[in-house]
Amino acid sequence: MTHNLPLSGARLWDSLMEMARIGATPKGGCNRQALTDTDALGRAKLLEWGKAIGLVPTIDRLGTIGLLRPGKDPTRKPVAIGSHLDTVPTGGKFDGVYGVLAGLEILRALHEAGAETEAPILLIDWTNEEGARFFPPMAASEAAMGLADEAKLLATQEIHGPATFGGELARLGLAGTADPAAWRDIECYFETHIEQGPFLEEKGAPIGIVTHALASQAVEVTITGRDGHVGSTMASRADALAAGAALLLAGEKIALDTQGGGMASITRISVTPDARGNIPSGCRMLGSMRHQTTAGLQAMLASWQQAADRIAAERGVGIEMALGWGYPETVFDPVLLGRLEASAQRRGLASHRLPTPIGHDAIHVGRVLPAAMLFIPCHGGLSHNEAESITPEWSTAGLMVLADAVIETAGLVR
Amino acid sequence: MTHNLPLSGARLWDSLMEMARIGATPKGGCNRQALTDTDALGRAKLLEWGKAIGLVPTIDRLGTIGLLRPGKDPTRKPVAIGSHLDTVPTGGKFDGVYGVLAGLEILRALHEAGAETEAPILLIDWTNEEGARFFPPMAASEAAMGLADEAKLLATQEIHGPATFGGELARLGLAGTADPAAWRDIECYFETHIEQGPFLEEKGAPIGIVTHALASQAVEVTITGRDGHVGSTMASRADALAAGAALLLAGEKIALDTQGGGMASITRISVTPDARGNIPSGCRMLGSMRHQTTAGLQAMLASWQQAADRIAAERGVGIEMALGWGYPETVFDPVLLGRLEASAQRRGLASHRLPTPIGHDAIHVGRVLPAAMLFIPCHGGLSHNEAESITPEWSTAGLMVLADAVIETAGLVR
Repeated sequence: MTHNLPLSGARLWDSLMEMARIGATPKGGCNRQALTDTDALGRAKLLEWGKAIGLVPTIDRLGTIGLLRPGKDPTRKPVAIGSHLDTVPTGGKFDGVYGVLAGLEILRALHEAGAETEAPILLIDWTNEEGARFFPPMAASEAAMGLADEAKLLATQEIHGPATFGGELARLGLAGTADPAAWRDIECYFETHIEQGPFLEEKGAPIGIVTHALASQAVEVTITGRDGHVGSTMASRADALAAGAALLLAGEKIALDTQGGGMASITRISVTPDARGNIPSGCRMLGSMRHQTTAGLQAMLASWQQAADRIAAERGVGIEMALGWGYPETVFDPVLLGRLEASAQRRGLASHRLPTPIGHDAIHVGRVLPAAMLFIPCHGGLSHNEAESITPEWSTAGLMVLADAVIETAGLVR
Repeated sequence: MTHNLPLSGARLWDSLMEMARIGATPKGGCNRQALTDTDALGRAKLLEWGKAIGLVPTIDRLGTIGLLRPGKDPTRKPVAIGSHLDTVPTGGKFDGVYGVLAGLEILRALHEAGAETEAPILLIDWTNEEGARFFPPMAASEAAMGLADEAKLLATQEIHGPATFGGELARLGLAGTADPAAWRDIECYFETHIEQGPFLEEKGAPIGIVTHALASQAVEVTITGRDGHVGSTMASRADALAAGAALLLAGEKIALDTQGGGMASITRISVTPDARGNIPSGCRMLGSMRHQTTAGLQAMLASWQQAADRIAAERGVGIEMALGWGYPETVFDPVLLGRLEASAQRRGLASHRLPTPIGHDAIHVGRVLPAAMLFIPCHGGLSHNEAESITPEWSTAGLMVLADAVIETAGLVR
């Protein structure tokens, strides 16, 4: 170890619990959906904490907050640590928040020690990672990296209401003046997060080194069949739901045939006319496919399209497969990952390499800049759930490993 | 032919068009859902028409209307003709209404001719055949035949609101004092109806002799899987919707394997949590199976239950299959069917024997008493649709064949 900073797992835990009181739900979770009153309260708390240790705040036009601790070397760009404070409607205390507050604890320890780093350290709270209120998720980081259009994002309407992303930023006074592109002006990026899966807990490893993000693609399926009474003969039917069932199982088989490389899911479904006595003449499904590699995902999607064409022909229905939101396979920076791994080893913490099948802001950053992700376990892999939980030991382990890698990267002067 | 009554296809058509103005929809259909204000207007119109030709009205406690034309022979029970005036929300001009008004036209012709029959003739308008507002369909005839509980039916709440069957009868003043069981006191029952399928039109036959009703059984499926993120491995999942898809296709295969004898359908489906990023942990489906015979239906249902058990075991989900509304195979009276068939032949009208896969009041009556059904074609098999249509020629053909059989059964005195 190259530092002896007064990192406090207890202080991090206390801050996690304090943040959890903002938007606390009756069942012990949190509801701080992006650009709501509770999100604003969470952001204000973070800014307050940053001010207390002299961090320099910057807010961009999308509401993303940066808290900078200057470095000694004026030629060095910031080493960034980021995640998000927003949650899903029935979210937990740790998804996202842990990554922001672990970063804050590193900056607190540096402040307390009166330490100086060569490179500046920048803590980022990205707006709307969850995408629960405004689709898509990971929106602000995507725009910041130049991968999505800022104006389009600002005009986005909420999923279940009339408010817009830009309107809510204005209403809550959360928009700053900085160009979101400014976050690209960093040396590298670290993000730590709960795993949201059962792997690390099952392995008994408190540290996950996230090698890459699976390529992911949403697919919107629209099936058009023919009206008919449930008393009509089987031969005369063009049942849109039956075709949807066949398409779902075809996608599932394609995923199973990858032997663990890929996944396929249908998560939402509706039929028309949705009446007891009527054969469904229409069926809409929202699905997604994921694969370890972009090429693997493309092959899966091509197979699914072939299956759709075959099912449409066999069943006399129309099947439209529209590609929606997605991102390519994203490999994290091997040097940064090596630093995280070495830190875990030095601290005697078991670690495992694993990919993330789930989206994080680090993916968009990693598409453009050197980035790395670190996971800690969560109980039962449970996340996006009020019962989401971690142990203080896991929290502290992740903090230590993250801190070591960040400090090593930024360079400790004294 | 044994009579020369002044039956008027034109008068029947005019009455169909006049009734269609009550609850007329912008697209040319009708909305006279059971026990609504428009249903009440339709009933009042029928009572007015009945009064004009001296028919004796009786209304039972469920709102079912009987219009009696007395006969000469005091020992004979009435020969009944029945159907329904209620429609689905976006119904057509003919489903149900045609059967009631064809019966009315026979009574008008008898009245105009000053003719007398041996047996009385009774025209019945059953309450709530469609079941669109109050589930189940064919409710009043089922209770009248002693196959369903009157008190339970009166307490039934509407599908999409708080009103009750009994409450709406009272609000609209549609309940009479007669015991619904009184309709069992008839000699036999005739019902004519549009086919609601394409068979007769394709065959070029204006007359369908309905030999029997397929056995029918609704099934409510509840599948319980496990929560999970769409990024979770295929092996770790218990996807309730994927299990539902497998169950749907298993039911479809069971129906196809009957080689035309049976049908299976899933018409409604919903999932929980119904969220983009979540594997469905719950799935509810509403389905039905039908078969030419009750034994065949039982065999299909047993196979489907076996498939459900297998799918549940394979996929680690719970599958509950609850049997809902249904009725057994019902064979119509061969003597009455023979009279209908002979009439069509005498009048030079092509006829085909066919079963009804769809529910009608005649089925419940036929489970208890001698009953027969007659179909006329409808364009494209389209029904439960504002565009439902028939030709005046088909309407007249059905009228003539029905009239001949009713008159032959009741016996013409002069």
